[in-house]
Amino acid sequence: MYRIDLNCDLGESFGAYTKGNDEEILKYVSSANIACGFHAGDPVIIRETVKKAISRGAAIGAHPSTPDLVGFGRRNMDISPEEVYAAVLYQVGAVQGFVQAEGSVLHHVKPHGALYNMAAKNSALAEAIALAVYRVNPELILYGLAGSELIAAGKKLGMPTASEVFADRTYQDDGSLTPRTEANALLTDNGQAAGQVIRMIQEGKVASLSGNDVTIEAETVCIHGDGPHALAFAKTIHQRLLEKGIQVGSID
Amino acid sequence: MYRIDLNCDLGESFGAYTKGNDEEILKYVSSANIACGFHAGDPVIIRETVKKAISRGAAIGAHPSTPDLVGFGRRNMDISPEEVYAAVLYQVGAVQGFVQAEGSVLHHVKPHGALYNMAAKNSALAEAIALAVYRVNPELILYGLAGSELIAAGKKLGMPTASEVFADRTYQDDGSLTPRTEANALLTDNGQAAGQVIRMIQEGKVASLSGNDVTIEAETVCIHGDGPHALAFAKTIHQRLLEKGIQVGSID
Amino acid sequence: MYRIDLNCDLGESFGAYTKGNDEEILKYVSSANIACGFHAGDPVIIRETVKKAISRGAAIGAHPSTPDLVGFGRRNMDISPEEVYAAVLYQVGAVQGFVQAEGSVLHHVKPHGALYNMAAKNSALAEAIALAVYRVNPELILYGLAGSELIAAGKKLGMPTASEVFADRTYQDDGSLTPRTEANALLTDNGQAAGQVIRMIQEGKVASLSGNDVTIEAETVCIHGDGPHALAFAKTIHQRLLEKGIQVGSID
Amino acid sequence: MYRIDLNCDLGESFGAYTKGNDEEILKYVSSANIACGFHAGDPVIIRETVKKAISRGAAIGAHPSTPDLVGFGRRNMDISPEEVYAAVLYQVGAVQGFVQAEGSVLHHVKPHGALYNMAAKNSALAEAIALAVYRVNPELILYGLAGSELIAAGKKLGMPTASEVFADRTYQDDGSLTPRTEANALLTDNGQAAGQVIRMIQEGKVASLSGNDVTIEAETVCIHGDGPHALAFAKTIHQRLLEKGIQVGSID
Repeated sequence: MYRIDLNCDLGESFGAYTKGNDEEILKYVSSANIACGFHAGDPVIIRETVKKAISRGAAIGAHPSTPDLVGFGRRNMDISPEEVYAAVLYQVGAVQGFVQAEGSVLHHVKPHGALYNMAAKNSALAEAIALAVYRVNPELILYGLAGSELIAAGKKLGMPTASEVFADRTYQDDGSLTPRTEANALLTDNGQAAGQVIRMIQEGKVASLSGNDVTIEAETVCIHGDGPHALAFAKTIHQRLLEKGIQVGSID
Repeated sequence: MYRIDLNCDLGESFGAYTKGNDEEILKYVSSANIACGFHAGDPVIIRETVKKAISRGAAIGAHPSTPDLVGFGRRNMDISPEEVYAAVLYQVGAVQGFVQAEGSVLHHVKPHGALYNMAAKNSALAEAIALAVYRVNPELILYGLAGSELIAAGKKLGMPTASEVFADRTYQDDGSLTPRTEANALLTDNGQAAGQVIRMIQEGKVASLSGNDVTIEAETVCIHGDGPHALAFAKTIHQRLLEKGIQVGSID
Repeated sequence: MYRIDLNCDLGESFGAYTKGNDEEILKYVSSANIACGFHAGDPVIIRETVKKAISRGAAIGAHPSTPDLVGFGRRNMDISPEEVYAAVLYQVGAVQGFVQAEGSVLHHVKPHGALYNMAAKNSALAEAIALAVYRVNPELILYGLAGSELIAAGKKLGMPTASEVFADRTYQDDGSLTPRTEANALLTDNGQAAGQVIRMIQEGKVASLSGNDVTIEAETVCIHGDGPHALAFAKTIHQRLLEKGIQVGSID
Repeated sequence: MYRIDLNCDLGESFGAYTKGNDEEILKYVSSANIACGFHAGDPVIIRETVKKAISRGAAIGAHPSTPDLVGFGRRNMDISPEEVYAAVLYQVGAVQGFVQAEGSVLHHVKPHGALYNMAAKNSALAEAIALAVYRVNPELILYGLAGSELIAAGKKLGMPTASEVFADRTYQDDGSLTPRTEANALLTDNGQAAGQVIRMIQEGKVASLSGNDVTIEAETVCIHGDGPHALAFAKTIHQRLLEKGIQVGSID
């Protein structure tokens, strides 16, 4: 009997600006990564999103970023491990406050955008993030790219981790994602994406672009919450998993 | 045997900017109110300040503000109770994360500047602040102006409160502070300021500007951390209290 | 032969967030008020909006705000005349730079949201805004609420002004707008709104809520760019004006 | 008869935070580079600084940065040429507004910190900066590191440029600065620093760390405005230049 977590970035609105379709997407995911105000989100939005996610039974995570509101946290920057440690601590603490206020507990932390990407390859930044999360609460689950430095840093500290895979991204022979700058980085067919995920869950393998089978650990699947096709994509993945008898649920 | 808390706003530096003399002032106070990033402070500064305050044995509080970095949180604004509730929750959570990471516990919350002043008179804002603090942790002590709506709101919720008095401000017949816009709003003589505080602690009274004795509850005294005379002021107040046999210590 | 300016707030997107339908609305307006980064807009958005507006032949104005991104510039705040003077100068200069870079000239300035409302009643803030605009360039046209302190301040300085009226807001006996907090503040019927504007242009009168005719100067009409009905509203107003032989064009 | 420009970064205070000693340093420099609000400075500070600089007769320049207030603009980031173009235009326009308001004219633009360093080596960013400055006003002088891509980009556009040299930094054989991360990156002796500058001006040469003479173009010298020794340094450089008969004055 297989079981998998579907996670989605939520609460990415800001002030008078609305982004995503949180209410709808929450029907299909088991974990919510909530923007903390550095790339998106503001206190009022965080509060509303935490309440929505709790009422839908999603496990709640913080989704910290580099300080880059205008760039939506997508631009790499030369930020030191000390700055990253403090920035993550700040953001995780902030979201944790809202979760406490609702009588619930924070479940996980997943870095956003550029921070996620930098932490996949840069071990110093990865260790800073893992330590910040661990020191707030050693039971928090650290979400990171499967096979990344971030997952390695979490394991080194002895904290729980969740290896994330992507349904709609293609993989390379070394198990890394094909960069978005390349033509065939994305799987645009929802059925094909669902098939890739199901195989990762059941067999622990993914076919690379060059056709080789690569071993991959799949503990949580990234579901996009924004864009015109996000909802249809989430719905298809969710449905196909259930059809295959794979249970969707958050990580204990 | 009398005992009083001396509190001071700390961690008001930001990025490349330094403000205050936190190391020195920590020698004389028992509670530290730490800026949370909305009027001053940034994650790196908060971390350093929390560590300093813990190492000096000060009780640690969050010092939330309206979102007004360029105005240092000193400008009143039309912010709704819902916005204030969320802003306080965010900031208290953020500082609490740093305190947890150092293996300590958050002790109190004192609003900053315009938020402090608005919460003294506006019951809706006062209740929003009190509720936010209470919901993060009902044992957190809410610091507010003695006789203010904020203290009333905290008492209504049944949470611990600390009535704050000022050594260097003059009082009016109704127990409120003389507005800073008036000429004789400040006591500039440190000895006179110490005398005012000692009487408030021992007798529960303060002489108003018009010469009347006004009843006042003094549970914590505000010590300024910034400005050329802050250190000498803190030192004098601290010393005079000890000379009178009044113990300086944080609120249990 | 009547002629009227239709103005609209544009460039209110920010970073990854899109707001409004600038391309479409530019078909119906003669003046564009471009957000300057304090309540909305960022440098990339300002550049794109300036280019779009120029290509559609709209007169270009700056739309400065209080510094309140998360509140979209809609919250009144205690900002001093000195701060307002500098904030307006900064924002007008910034937008002017983009206009210069495209080989065009800045045409007008209209304060946004809370700044607009405060400047309607507070003469010190109104004078600070007018002076800032005047000192950048005394030929810039100052847009303000018809009958406001802002228009009075501009006239006092001898600079060109444009009295703004609203098609979809109701008026009171003293010529002021019915506050949005009241039930009948808005005209929801586009035809009725068009009729109100046409009478203001042709007769210089508007019927107040209590049924009295009030004298009003109408030099520019505010067209909303955001919301589900904005486009239909703009289209109707524009069409009815043309049907009545009223020319739509920017102020010389 | 030699003549040289001494430039200094000014207006780097922010809100309630004071940085530098602008009044004093203005006695020794001929050009002021004024922070534009992205790494330091706010509208009120910019206004004051522009007025001070004009009253001391300094040529006024804008000192634009990446958007990084908390990092003081010192952290490299992956910012696209389009973003840089717009960010520079915004900031140059903003400062130009203040200069216009005082009846003066903007003289030059010098990028700050990380933007300066990135523009020294990255030709795409250099060209974006040069174009933004050129399009605001083709007579603005572009300040950049001697021998940098930024100077090359300005020359390519046919706009005036000023090659900047450093009195207190050591040089390498290829004419580049020794990175600050290396031990001997700085000349700490003011006299030696003055000597290095004088030779650069009179002979167009600088001795590299390895003892070789390197050709260098010196049109403007960077004078630091912050730090405990800034003032003594500025005073010494200024005095030694005058003693050698080298006139200090802004670039025509």
